[in-house]
Amino acid sequence: MENNERYEKGIHAMEELFSEEVRTGMRHIQKISPDFWDMIVSSGFGDLYARNTLTMEQREYITLTTLITQGAFDQLGVHVQAALNIGMSQEEIIEIIIHCSGYVGFPKAIQAMGIAGEIFKNHDDASRKD
Amino acid sequence: MENNERYEKGIHAMEELFSEEVRTGMRHIQKISPDFWDMIVSSGFGDLYARNTLTMEQREYITLTTLITQGAFDQLGVHVQAALNIGMSQEEIIEIIIHCSGYVGFPKAIQAMGIAGEIFKNHDDASRKD
Amino acid sequence: MENNERYEKGIHAMEELFSEEVRTGMRHIQKISPDFWDMIVSSGFGDLYARNTLTMEQREYITLTTLITQGAFDQLGVHVQAALNIGMSQEEIIEIIIHCSGYVGFPKAIQAMGIAGEIFKNHDDASRKD
Amino acid sequence: MENNERYEKGIHAMEELFSEEVRTGMRHIQKISPDFWDMIVSSGFGDLYARNTLTMEQREYITLTTLITQGAFDQLGVHVQAALNIGMSQEEIIEIIIHCSGYVGFPKAIQAMGIAGEIFKNHDDASRKD
Amino acid sequence: MENNERYEKGIHAMEELFSEEVRTGMRHIQKISPDFWDMIVSSGFGDLYARNTLTMEQREYITLTTLITQGAFDQLGVHVQAALNIGMSQEEIIEIIIHCSGYVGFPKAIQAMGIAGEIFKNHDDASRKD
Amino acid sequence: MENNERYEKGIHAMEELFSEEVRTGMRHIQKISPDFWDMIVSSGFGDLYARNTLTMEQREYITLTTLITQGAFDQLGVHVQAALNIGMSQEEIIEIIIHCSGYVGFPKAIQAMGIAGEIFKNHDDASRKD
Repeated sequence: MENNERYEKGIHAMEELFSEEVRTGMRHIQKISPDFWDMIVSSGFGDLYARNTLTMEQREYITLTTLITQGAFDQLGVHVQAALNIGMSQEEIIEIIIHCSGYVGFPKAIQAMGIAGEIFKNHDDASRKD
Repeated sequence: MENNERYEKGIHAMEELFSEEVRTGMRHIQKISPDFWDMIVSSGFGDLYARNTLTMEQREYITLTTLITQGAFDQLGVHVQAALNIGMSQEEIIEIIIHCSGYVGFPKAIQAMGIAGEIFKNHDDASRKD
Repeated sequence: MENNERYEKGIHAMEELFSEEVRTGMRHIQKISPDFWDMIVSSGFGDLYARNTLTMEQREYITLTTLITQGAFDQLGVHVQAALNIGMSQEEIIEIIIHCSGYVGFPKAIQAMGIAGEIFKNHDDASRKD
Repeated sequence: MENNERYEKGIHAMEELFSEEVRTGMRHIQKISPDFWDMIVSSGFGDLYARNTLTMEQREYITLTTLITQGAFDQLGVHVQAALNIGMSQEEIIEIIIHCSGYVGFPKAIQAMGIAGEIFKNHDDASRKD
Repeated sequence: MENNERYEKGIHAMEELFSEEVRTGMRHIQKISPDFWDMIVSSGFGDLYARNTLTMEQREYITLTTLITQGAFDQLGVHVQAALNIGMSQEEIIEIIIHCSGYVGFPKAIQAMGIAGEIFKNHDDASRKD
Repeated sequence: MENNERYEKGIHAMEELFSEEVRTGMRHIQKISPDFWDMIVSSGFGDLYARNTLTMEQREYITLTTLITQGAFDQLGVHVQAALNIGMSQEEIIEIIIHCSGYVGFPKAIQAMGIAGEIFKNHDDASRKD
């Protein structure tokens, strides 16, 4: 697999996960370091999300859990959105956070639930407008 | 829901996940602190694994991911076994670790893969004997 | 102990620790997930803070330390307030952070001290108004 | 305060906390790096444990909690011993771990309880011989 | 070495690393706890940055890496500035973050790159004004 | 750059860092998951260590620091060896750990120093035999 192919697969995975607005926001990294941007797309998305064996939904189970566990709350919002975009329900996302609470403790789970609640609200507002 | 019911549900979930040998090993905690044992069973298993919305398999996706992310390698082995016990394949578990590598870095992912490899080997040996 | 009793004990512990304003703020979690709210109250407060053996003050020593160590700075503020509410002094809280610095490193200890300083200032301002 | 005084205070605090056997074991660090040893004694013990405001027991509440939270299980054993040495009870140490479980999750709390159990057993055996 | 000498060395190291504006900002800690401020200066800077064996630049390699790894993003900005102040290039700092990405995962590396990008921009703007 | 080229660069970097014995040991991962092995070599070593801008020694500064900070002590030993292999001195490695102590706290720094001491001893013994 050529590097170009890895990059294309990464871009494709990102289009499936993120809205155009989110993807445009992510591009600010490309201006700081084009090399790092290539790695994010090719390694972070092309090498991981474009693999078989697991569905996109199963991959978001893993991604949401690892972000909550490591306290990476800055990235949690866009992946809650991504989970909704690929068809996961709010109940499922809430349940992931509840299951996490026993493994990471309440402080991180509460912070995650607050962030998810914000995304849900914006999502519901946007749906209502449609 | 009475406390007794939460405890019973927890024991039931543990029976689904762990072999008798593993469950007997876990009981050493009960000798140190009966109260803490009750909490592990009632809160850690009864309140979490016995809930609806997610399947046992989906819960193990979350559990394996959070253990890898927080470097709780002491507990990872029994949950790799649990994942196999409830019908997850070795390929799926490997894929969870691979997906994690982009989110937690290679050192933790490599350590997790080594532990999974050990469990797979014992599992294959045990199957061969049957 | 019935679930209802665990919940009541949790609410009671929260009333001892947090001002009405803080408790009202926490209720936004209840709107996102009533089940998770029940767990926070029953398990997080009822099962832990309402136990014997340790005083409320000793429990806040543990809570403040674990929040600083895991970098859960979003929750640190309300527990610094809680510590003051149950009668701990500013000197004691400062000393906990200083002791932590040798165990978690300066970056987390400095961030904790800044947060504590903010709470102290608001607290002193409120006292002055009385 | 001269450096020498900080070092002396640190040695004094270590004598209060650790058995001679434990202190001799710690000295292997001195052979690898005498400078680092000086820092451990002067900064880690002299500057922290020898301060006023908190008792030795209160300091062990903080130390045990931060070690459990950061998963520093290699050092947890000697501090469980230290806690017993300065007069804390097994019930108190168990209760610290139980309180931590809600803040750090079950995996780390279970590992901590297992380590504490080992130390308690050795301690009880030693007491019985006396 | 007397305490006073350790403090002086720490102040000297801080002057080499941080702008006057940054150092003034740090002084808010001194108002909350003069003792903790002394420790930060004497132990955090005097005992560490003023040692031989490593250059200031090598020490910033370590500092930037540990801040990224532990997710101490609040402090990362001032140390990116410090790295530029002692003559490190933007390319070097970007490369440190890229190298980290394989060890800590993409979420923390992406957040670090965003923070570095902000500092670079302010730095370039300030240079242009000169 | 084709994937094959990334893999070759990774193998080359690994040969520069690790002894044949260490590299053979690492190959057990390849038996568990050939895909993950390819990623470790191509992404973990080819994409990172084979880049320009930083020297091998500067990359080991970063690697040692991130391993100490995240408590990845299982991997620390081989990277202390790698640091010695590429010409870093024991004094330099000790100094990296000392600098880390102020940022990650004493427990992790002490554990790192103990591991480094073991590697130094084996290294000195091996040198003496030559």
